[in-house]
Amino acid sequence: MSADRITAIYHVTDSADRIAARADAIAVEQSVEMPVSAISDRNVLDNIVGKVEDISDIGGGKFEVRIGLAVATMGPEPGQLMNMLFGNSSIHADIELHDAVFPDSVLSAFGGPNHGLAGMRARVGAKDRALTCSALKPQGLDGKGLAKIAGQLAKGGLDYIKDDHGIADQHYSPFAERVPAIADAVRAARAADGGRTAYLPSLSGNLDQMRIQIDIARKAGLDGVLIAPMIAGVATFHALVRENPDMAFMAHPALAGASRIAPPLHLGKIFRLFGADATVFPNHGGRFGYSPVTCRTLADAALAPWDGLRDTVPVPAGGMTPDRVPEMLQFYGRDVMLLIGGGLLAAGSRMADEAAKFQDVVMHG
Amino acid sequence: MSADRITAIYHVTDSADRIAARADAIAVEQSVEMPVSAISDRNVLDNIVGKVEDISDIGGGKFEVRIGLAVATMGPEPGQLMNMLFGNSSIHADIELHDAVFPDSVLSAFGGPNHGLAGMRARVGAKDRALTCSALKPQGLDGKGLAKIAGQLAKGGLDYIKDDHGIADQHYSPFAERVPAIADAVRAARAADGGRTAYLPSLSGNLDQMRIQIDIARKAGLDGVLIAPMIAGVATFHALVRENPDMAFMAHPALAGASRIAPPLHLGKIFRLFGADATVFPNHGGRFGYSPVTCRTLADAALAPWDGLRDTVPVPAGGMTPDRVPEMLQFYGRDVMLLIGGGLLAAGSRMADEAAKFQDVVMHG
Repeated sequence: MSADRITAIYHVTDSADRIAARADAIAVEQSVEMPVSAISDRNVLDNIVGKVEDISDIGGGKFEVRIGLAVATMGPEPGQLMNMLFGNSSIHADIELHDAVFPDSVLSAFGGPNHGLAGMRARVGAKDRALTCSALKPQGLDGKGLAKIAGQLAKGGLDYIKDDHGIADQHYSPFAERVPAIADAVRAARAADGGRTAYLPSLSGNLDQMRIQIDIARKAGLDGVLIAPMIAGVATFHALVRENPDMAFMAHPALAGASRIAPPLHLGKIFRLFGADATVFPNHGGRFGYSPVTCRTLADAALAPWDGLRDTVPVPAGGMTPDRVPEMLQFYGRDVMLLIGGGLLAAGSRMADEAAKFQDVVMHG
Repeated sequence: MSADRITAIYHVTDSADRIAARADAIAVEQSVEMPVSAISDRNVLDNIVGKVEDISDIGGGKFEVRIGLAVATMGPEPGQLMNMLFGNSSIHADIELHDAVFPDSVLSAFGGPNHGLAGMRARVGAKDRALTCSALKPQGLDGKGLAKIAGQLAKGGLDYIKDDHGIADQHYSPFAERVPAIADAVRAARAADGGRTAYLPSLSGNLDQMRIQIDIARKAGLDGVLIAPMIAGVATFHALVRENPDMAFMAHPALAGASRIAPPLHLGKIFRLFGADATVFPNHGGRFGYSPVTCRTLADAALAPWDGLRDTVPVPAGGMTPDRVPEMLQFYGRDVMLLIGGGLLAAGSRMADEAAKFQDVVMHG
């Protein structure tokens, strides 16, 4: 692979006699999107048109097609990277974007996370252990009601509390009111033991609105936020990461499922490339259909050495319960943040106790 | 349906004995996302938790599930609307977001297109006829090269020329240089016949960058742009529509995915709700797999009366050729914009003649 191409790896359902022509068609679709025979410009033909690098039969009627896409067509701009990787091909039901290999120039251009696993541990005074997280719910409560629940969860000593991704800037709990109230409640709950629970409020709206929300969060003493990059737009996400090097960004997968990009690439590599310090994904055996292999591959993509880019903390979630903690630690090891939302909230008046038990098992096994 | 709920209509693959519980689970997933038994707040239970309105067996192992989702949870904010409609459920491979029914309050809150079909016709001096469009390609040419091609297409008298959606702000053809050059070439080409070809440059990047690009376009005498809402983020798209009532917005389906959100809802209704004056989609029988029924339903969703919202011009595209024009006019009628890209560009030195033929067939049958 020449340094100026990204290798996009597609899994294509097609027949053996058609796959070569199909691969050529994808290479054109994801680059110049017109008949190559009608292009006379030598530079475009040599340096812009996508190049089929390899085709291999992976069984089950599927082929792995590797296509070199010119970095020059992508900016570097996050939206344009997504567009050139999968913009039009996302509309083909028989094409999955399986993986991608990025040259160093692309990694350094986007820059990756500002904090990574080490930073996420440092903010809550953790050394080489797994981290804990819970989710603040339900939406519909006012800021005071949410602050009360957050206080209970923090009293249990959790490392992180994130807003439910459905909590936005609704009239019944506006961001500007609830975030300082929740931040105060969380701090107050940890005053006794001197530890820190970091609260990550959920951003919503457009770039201007999210900037205002980050300012509010910062003024409330917070140093991290939650964002759903596929809803916000990856360019919005990346701009906020680069503008706010003091803030940690936890990425949420909402709306990521509709586009048929393999989760390890999408929630692991791509969100890491654009700057996610932590990435939430549905653990196997929960409410969602990810397999153990998908989860393992995703966590590896988030954590593996990657040419100097910081790592991204894998955050398996989605219907997890306290009794699964030992098994999850076994599966993911200590480089992980375990997120239990509803499973703690369901404890009602025993919520702080359940949170403390969760924290204890993660810290001391 | 009470006025404060959106009815989201999902198609769910499941068994008859499980579908009731499954519907309840989706109603929870797309609202409070926690065990309802752990919620004590009366207001949340009554007014925020999603409500299953209907379940019906639609055959083939699929059920149609209608769920009332509280408008109050959605803002009104475009990203949050997508989040509450399909954020987490997009990750379930067996759930498709099939359709949605929006109360008037939601329609007026988002506002829809500023121009619609009548406005798109008026800008190019067309009355009650179908419109024509071509796409400027290939990416990789410099602004001068693209301007030359645009001039040829405009010479044929086309109504609209849009940038290929892959053309962004690349170093070899930066927006600020190529857009005025192309706008000039297009105007010059129509000086002889006094008609107007409207050129729609493609926006890329984040909200700040797109605002700058719109200013450049406006200064170049343009009054419309191309945008891919699923790449930009729907909140970015909607903010630009509302800030720039003089500009027409053509929406491109890049990254909108194959089939998880039904195209008539996604590219028809939702893009219309957020303000698309025209919506590009893959015509049946082209490079993409949409069926005639999908195309018809999508065009209907874009054009049907909708409580005072302006309509959105359907723009079937994707491998169309001049010989298909009569059949497409038969299929779509005159309330349509026909887009032929590569099929004209392939004509090389006869491009202007081919464009003129295309224009003539559309205008005079």
